[in-house]
Amino acid sequence: MSVLLTNIGELVTNDPDHGGTGPGGAPARTGSAPDGIGLVPDAAVVVEDGRIAWTGPAASAPAADDVVDLAGRCVLPGFVDSHSHTVFAGDRSAEFAARMTGQPYTGGGIATTVAATRAASEDALRARGTALVREMLAQGTTTVEIKSGYGQDVATEARTLRIARELTPETTYLGAHTVPAEYADDRAGYVGLVTGPMLAACAPHARWVDVFCEPAAPTAFDEDEARAVLRAGMRAGLSARVHGNQLSAGPGVRLALEVGAASVDHCTHLSDADVDALAGSWTTSGSWADDRRSGTVATLLPAVEFSTRSPYPDARRLLAAGVPVALATDCNPGSGYSSSMPFVVALAVREMRMSPAQALWSATAGGALALRRDDVGHLAVGARADLTVLDAPSHTYLAYRPGVPLVHEVWRNGTRAV
Amino acid sequence: MSVLLTNIGELVTNDPDHGGTGPGGAPARTGSAPDGIGLVPDAAVVVEDGRIAWTGPAASAPAADDVVDLAGRCVLPGFVDSHSHTVFAGDRSAEFAARMTGQPYTGGGIATTVAATRAASEDALRARGTALVREMLAQGTTTVEIKSGYGQDVATEARTLRIARELTPETTYLGAHTVPAEYADDRAGYVGLVTGPMLAACAPHARWVDVFCEPAAPTAFDEDEARAVLRAGMRAGLSARVHGNQLSAGPGVRLALEVGAASVDHCTHLSDADVDALAGSWTTSGSWADDRRSGTVATLLPAVEFSTRSPYPDARRLLAAGVPVALATDCNPGSGYSSSMPFVVALAVREMRMSPAQALWSATAGGALALRRDDVGHLAVGARADLTVLDAPSHTYLAYRPGVPLVHEVWRNGTRAV
Repeated sequence: MSVLLTNIGELVTNDPDHGGTGPGGAPARTGSAPDGIGLVPDAAVVVEDGRIAWTGPAASAPAADDVVDLAGRCVLPGFVDSHSHTVFAGDRSAEFAARMTGQPYTGGGIATTVAATRAASEDALRARGTALVREMLAQGTTTVEIKSGYGQDVATEARTLRIARELTPETTYLGAHTVPAEYADDRAGYVGLVTGPMLAACAPHARWVDVFCEPAAPTAFDEDEARAVLRAGMRAGLSARVHGNQLSAGPGVRLALEVGAASVDHCTHLSDADVDALAGSWTTSGSWADDRRSGTVATLLPAVEFSTRSPYPDARRLLAAGVPVALATDCNPGSGYSSSMPFVVALAVREMRMSPAQALWSATAGGALALRRDDVGHLAVGARADLTVLDAPSHTYLAYRPGVPLVHEVWRNGTRAV
Repeated sequence: MSVLLTNIGELVTNDPDHGGTGPGGAPARTGSAPDGIGLVPDAAVVVEDGRIAWTGPAASAPAADDVVDLAGRCVLPGFVDSHSHTVFAGDRSAEFAARMTGQPYTGGGIATTVAATRAASEDALRARGTALVREMLAQGTTTVEIKSGYGQDVATEARTLRIARELTPETTYLGAHTVPAEYADDRAGYVGLVTGPMLAACAPHARWVDVFCEPAAPTAFDEDEARAVLRAGMRAGLSARVHGNQLSAGPGVRLALEVGAASVDHCTHLSDADVDALAGSWTTSGSWADDRRSGTVATLLPAVEFSTRSPYPDARRLLAAGVPVALATDCNPGSGYSSSMPFVVALAVREMRMSPAQALWSATAGGALALRRDDVGHLAVGARADLTVLDAPSHTYLAYRPGVPLVHEVWRNGTRAV
């Protein structure tokens, strides 16, 4: 059964056949829009068996079993949100309000979420996580990564990842999110737990291992601790990604490159050497396939800067150096509780001076690259038929109409899901 | 037929009976949250004949003909968007993209919209305006003001206002938006048109007269021109509002106060005398009713600063001085095309350091005050039953979860509309 989606006002493919840059490569290095996103005006897409079977001008589209008229709307690859923390319990809206209004707050920060998550039933965690992933889907996100990290004990970390795995294949073991209070005087003991019994319980449910590497934060992990966590996870068959350089120009990027991590996330404070090294990780070969295995993406999370009133990362510096940039929500109850990729795209354009096309690439192909996936984030023939349809004539509207729910419908695996 | 809405996790009333400050008064002058918005936890509302018949704790709610269980959700007064330009034609997304990426653009700015609006059919204008008002409703806006100003000739201004009047009673004649190209060498001739034949054709369809008073902008109007426009409109039975102090500390506020305008909108550049005078307009009597007739609200439009990458107005200075602040979208194709009051609230908290409660008040009661309406913007007994239900436990979530479509349902005139 094939379906022809036609009368598409603007189709964003990221497909090299249409002048795009798929998730195998870096975005246009000059920063000029609309390079690199493979735009096709007056387009059509044929979907079959959950995959893209054809894309091109509507006038030359082949026949199909069914036809959907999209009335001039814009179609994008579904967003790939490569960084989220959406399985948790508790409420930290009062902490947010206190931070925004400059009032003192002693509610406990992340420890509040850890306590609530440990105390929550599996059903309650599943209900919240499921609701958030559904909310993301309704905003056009068809691939999402979900991290653990609010359990910080063996049972809760494993439970979090079991639930996350029901929601997505992109699950990340982040036992080393922060050092929990009960290990404050025994950091080595906690690293031993994270690299030992906790890892053993979690690895079966995870694809990735992650660590919050930030020597400037007392409850985060320094370079040696972070290396131990990542190396142990990799020995257990997981692939590495790193929270790094959020609060200071620390060792996160260096370590991510040392272990060949797929992505280093936050990247607010980078040295020139960090930027050069990230760019260098993509130039070891000319081949897409090699690059996809070897390079490290810089993942930027501007909704966190919005919700913490912090300086935004310098996206243009990374783009100018040729570093592939991904955009993700970091949806979490503490530093930023937005699940909206359209909002992230609008912030990237307004606050980080990415062009609308660069931001769109980073929110789709960039996210796919950060997850080392070549089946999502673009609409080349053979890709998964994950499509987001906007109630707008072009991708520019994501930034042009900030805050407006523009997602008209969402297709996942070739079927309409929203 | 009465309806009991119950199991409301948090009810925002702005009702003095619950410690709120209705649209008759200024918000809490100290800036401390959550003063002034009349919060009731674990609440219920009874709606009858399109009006609020009762509010209070759910445990003591009276019986009603029908019961709706809101499962702990937050209920707000419907947003009052007191400043929009939502009847127009044409597309300026390319101009937006050029501005955001620092590229030259010679597309013509507002003249593009004027040309497209003049050329558009009445049906096309009505379809776009209707879609935008429906989009606003889905985001919780139950009262909207709509301005003309993209016609700039007699027929198109009148046509715009006829269509706007089908959509809302709050229609504003803004023939003096800019001086159109054909009058560039005859400004006096255009002011004569605006105060003469154009006013005669428009006044039957308008409640308000407005002018873009900004001597710093060559195509806007200086103090004498603006005074002539406002006075003529008032003689024709319209009430005054002013676009002022957007680009410079010009005469807009002064003029607004001189003519007793309900609101001066933008207020990015204010002198100390402007702030004092705005505050002074509210202290001539202790009575709500007198204040409502006499005072001038400062209406802030932060989505414009977001979309033009401009400095935000100083909301805290106004609040500290006791000036009532309204928040509105300014939804328009040039300087900011967001229709989202939740987004405006999030920006007000993040960028203008309003507390979540102050922002909520300004987006509801503040907007009502800027339109001199006492039947909307609050949920005291007798008010219109215009209610926005959030998929969230408190109003704080509007800023805590930026970009996320949180509006679960909307009631207007006591009936569920979304």
